[in-house]
Amino acid sequence: MIQKVKKRIFDVLHGTSTEDVYVRVFHVFIITLIFLNVFAVILETVESLSLQYMILFRAFEVFSVFVFTVEYILRLWTCTTDKRFRGTMKGRFRFSVTPLALVDLMAILPFYLPMCLPLDLRFIRALRLFRLLRILKMGRYSESLRTLGNVLKEGKAELLITVFGVLILLVVASSLMYFVENAAQPKAFSSIPAAMWWGVATLTTVGYGDIYPITPLGRFLGAIIAILGIGAIAIPAGILTSGFAKEIQKRHEKRGMCPYCGKDMTYPQEKSANSG
Amino acid sequence: MIQKVKKRIFDVLHGTSTEDVYVRVFHVFIITLIFLNVFAVILETVESLSLQYMILFRAFEVFSVFVFTVEYILRLWTCTTDKRFRGTMKGRFRFSVTPLALVDLMAILPFYLPMCLPLDLRFIRALRLFRLLRILKMGRYSESLRTLGNVLKEGKAELLITVFGVLILLVVASSLMYFVENAAQPKAFSSIPAAMWWGVATLTTVGYGDIYPITPLGRFLGAIIAILGIGAIAIPAGILTSGFAKEIQKRHEKRGMCPYCGKDMTYPQEKSANSG
Amino acid sequence: MIQKVKKRIFDVLHGTSTEDVYVRVFHVFIITLIFLNVFAVILETVESLSLQYMILFRAFEVFSVFVFTVEYILRLWTCTTDKRFRGTMKGRFRFSVTPLALVDLMAILPFYLPMCLPLDLRFIRALRLFRLLRILKMGRYSESLRTLGNVLKEGKAELLITVFGVLILLVVASSLMYFVENAAQPKAFSSIPAAMWWGVATLTTVGYGDIYPITPLGRFLGAIIAILGIGAIAIPAGILTSGFAKEIQKRHEKRGMCPYCGKDMTYPQEKSANSG
Amino acid sequence: MIQKVKKRIFDVLHGTSTEDVYVRVFHVFIITLIFLNVFAVILETVESLSLQYMILFRAFEVFSVFVFTVEYILRLWTCTTDKRFRGTMKGRFRFSVTPLALVDLMAILPFYLPMCLPLDLRFIRALRLFRLLRILKMGRYSESLRTLGNVLKEGKAELLITVFGVLILLVVASSLMYFVENAAQPKAFSSIPAAMWWGVATLTTVGYGDIYPITPLGRFLGAIIAILGIGAIAIPAGILTSGFAKEIQKRHEKRGMCPYCGKDMTYPQEKSANSG
Repeated sequence: MIQKVKKRIFDVLHGTSTEDVYVRVFHVFIITLIFLNVFAVILETVESLSLQYMILFRAFEVFSVFVFTVEYILRLWTCTTDKRFRGTMKGRFRFSVTPLALVDLMAILPFYLPMCLPLDLRFIRALRLFRLLRILKMGRYSESLRTLGNVLKEGKAELLITVFGVLILLVVASSLMYFVENAAQPKAFSSIPAAMWWGVATLTTVGYGDIYPITPLGRFLGAIIAILGIGAIAIPAGILTSGFAKEIQKRHEKRGMCPYCGKDMTYPQEKSANSG
Repeated sequence: MIQKVKKRIFDVLHGTSTEDVYVRVFHVFIITLIFLNVFAVILETVESLSLQYMILFRAFEVFSVFVFTVEYILRLWTCTTDKRFRGTMKGRFRFSVTPLALVDLMAILPFYLPMCLPLDLRFIRALRLFRLLRILKMGRYSESLRTLGNVLKEGKAELLITVFGVLILLVVASSLMYFVENAAQPKAFSSIPAAMWWGVATLTTVGYGDIYPITPLGRFLGAIIAILGIGAIAIPAGILTSGFAKEIQKRHEKRGMCPYCGKDMTYPQEKSANSG
Repeated sequence: MIQKVKKRIFDVLHGTSTEDVYVRVFHVFIITLIFLNVFAVILETVESLSLQYMILFRAFEVFSVFVFTVEYILRLWTCTTDKRFRGTMKGRFRFSVTPLALVDLMAILPFYLPMCLPLDLRFIRALRLFRLLRILKMGRYSESLRTLGNVLKEGKAELLITVFGVLILLVVASSLMYFVENAAQPKAFSSIPAAMWWGVATLTTVGYGDIYPITPLGRFLGAIIAILGIGAIAIPAGILTSGFAKEIQKRHEKRGMCPYCGKDMTYPQEKSANSG
Repeated sequence: MIQKVKKRIFDVLHGTSTEDVYVRVFHVFIITLIFLNVFAVILETVESLSLQYMILFRAFEVFSVFVFTVEYILRLWTCTTDKRFRGTMKGRFRFSVTPLALVDLMAILPFYLPMCLPLDLRFIRALRLFRLLRILKMGRYSESLRTLGNVLKEGKAELLITVFGVLILLVVASSLMYFVENAAQPKAFSSIPAAMWWGVATLTTVGYGDIYPITPLGRFLGAIIAILGIGAIAIPAGILTSGFAKEIQKRHEKRGMCPYCGKDMTYPQEKSANSG
């Protein structure tokens, strides 16, 4: 009997059958709780809210940790159902060191650990955000995710070259700007790393405006770098777009039709072969 | 006779025949009035203009509301011509709760309602902007609109994933930045929501410059996030572009020609079939 | 004899044969002079340079106007060679009101006109920049220019819809922001037009930082608008890209080959037809 | 024997066989040293680090120059192995004036030259950054680099037209803004070059916020220019994307398969020919 319950809990936790009502309810509940935890972590940092609703935040924290602890214990108990984690002790240990199990542990640990520093506590609590990644496992948008992944994989070499090129451009541009602007603005352009902060803000077209050239030569140089920054956006855009176009075509081909004529691709050839 | 007039007014209001001169004149008049109302709403908020041309604005308001009221009454009166709104009372009620009829009502209501608060009044008046959406109904650019819609629909799953990914990146980046910069800038990075304001400005490359990291670690983190912000532009651009390319090809196919050869697509197959 | 000289001058001015050395020398000289004039106009506004090199600027101005005057007179004299401008008086008048002839006239007129206001003078002088447009006539990059033109024409309807959509978004976003931020920042968000200045800076991701929301609701609204601003870049980028891809394919097709196989497109069909 | 050693050193330096362990070790060592040198140059400009770790920076400098000097001497000694640089004196001289050999020389020269000015020294030291370009020679990502190069070459004419168009737009927009804003902000918009600094920041959407229009007309003009700035990003993005798409197709074709059907491209034609 206990084995049956164990198997059932394992199935619900891992959502092997999406048609099961319990699986759906459990997953919607956990995802909602994760989202609410993220909101709570964000809102708790607002001092006025944190002071006013301290009890509410605390209660929600206790409730969340309770749920996540139960979830973690159940996962640890039922993990032996999985072939990979067979063995009462050894299997459970191997399960507990998987990245997802560690994330689960880190989401509840800060609550149980003695609270030494308020900053450290918050930092560890931030790890709860990683629970968000679980949503990606849900397979709902798996095809889209695979497309995104394939596009990034397909254009990996070109993207790396672009990133590398942008980094070289950043170092060269920032070094030049440092030499040009250092005399006029010894505080803002105090060193190459300081000039690189300007370089990143310019090449990415963010442009905070906390640091910018003021000498005529510096502005001329800055103008050229800002224009080159357009390329830093246009080139990766081009690479990703080409990748997307190709992925969409591949998906069509799998469905066995020409992406352009919308007809069975093997058709004309076979027909002409038959006609002989 | 009254039925004929009713039918005629209904046709003019709904522009069923674009060749009719009355239809065209009426629509150009209403669209111009809508545009002028939008400009009036915008300009009225400029105090100097509002005080100087108070009478003019008021006169235009009275005239506009008069026209829109007549239009609304005529629409309400003639709506029974439409099969969907048959029935003197029931049909007219059903018509009056359609979104467009409600927008029409809201455009004139603030004038008749007692003016309690000047702010509220203006807010309700802003609803007049929704009349702009009527232009989209005019079917002129319907093919283009359908293309835009199809592209967004086609890339919906990928766009959602991207938006979701950007939101996770935003939360993680802002939380990290809050932990890093809070000590150095307790006012600017007072909470995670405050840090998220920085995160949005950086990932979208807007970069107002009201909030930015000042510590070396914060700047290093900010630089990485700014560079990732390029992806936040490049990935949706890639998705939309692939979608547009596909839509243009589809349109070609409908016209019965291959988008690449510019020839009748069924031609080569039939030719080879005939050759057998 | 005079007719021969006239014909010769006409040919040199209009560059009918690019192999002619005189034509090339003349065009390079005029284009260089136009570029130098643009630089002179730009540099003359720098007070320190203007005062120091006053005589040089004046001399260059006199020399330029002399050359452009001679060019204009020669164009006016020889224009009758062109079939469209036949007739000593009537043809010349018709030539002198063509846009390019008017630009030529406006480039020299400010020199001869009595100089009333220094501002006006400079403004008229700025028209000299329009001479730059002549370079576009030179047919060198005519294929590229035609591609650019075709792309803009092809995506015209979609681009118009996008621009129209961005304008509606701008008006709605700025009106909302005005209602939200007016109370907190009565000076910065004094009116909807003032809020639209914020809206443009945000939607285009320029973000000067002279005006931005400070209330929590305003920042939440601003964040959404900034994210929608990405679409304002991504959608036209997508439209233009699809257009470019199609144009490149068209160019290939004209050369009589399939853009994908690189082979004569009519080949396989004819072959299979012959095989029957 | 010496010839064998010479040949061996030449092979290691030029990495003709990537399977050789010595070649790999040597290249990884040199690349690491180049990267560390770049970091050292960057960090040395931070005064606090420079003072604290002066001896470390100096020791690393001496070590680096020693290695690069040995490398340079070995390259100079073994260069005669290359057919192009045959001849003890003449060949070596011809090798020493190749761009890469000059870069190598410039990377060590500042150390040996008497140190006159600290600024000049640093500037010459910055040339060490050019050693980074050597990584590009390593042929690892050669296919990707060739793709990037081909894309830029393919769209060269269109990109030039775009750059040229953006420059004309920049000059016209900045001149107009100078005339409009000069009276209101005589310091910020003191001249057209100063206005061009605003123009670049706006067209590239960087928007530092150090200079922006404040008059209503100036803001209206600025809004239009900012919107046109989107085109300055979208058009090159479109050109580069179309180029990338085409390059990817070309690569497929080389592999002997149709990029769309995924089949041998000559297949259908031959089959139909055989069927006759």
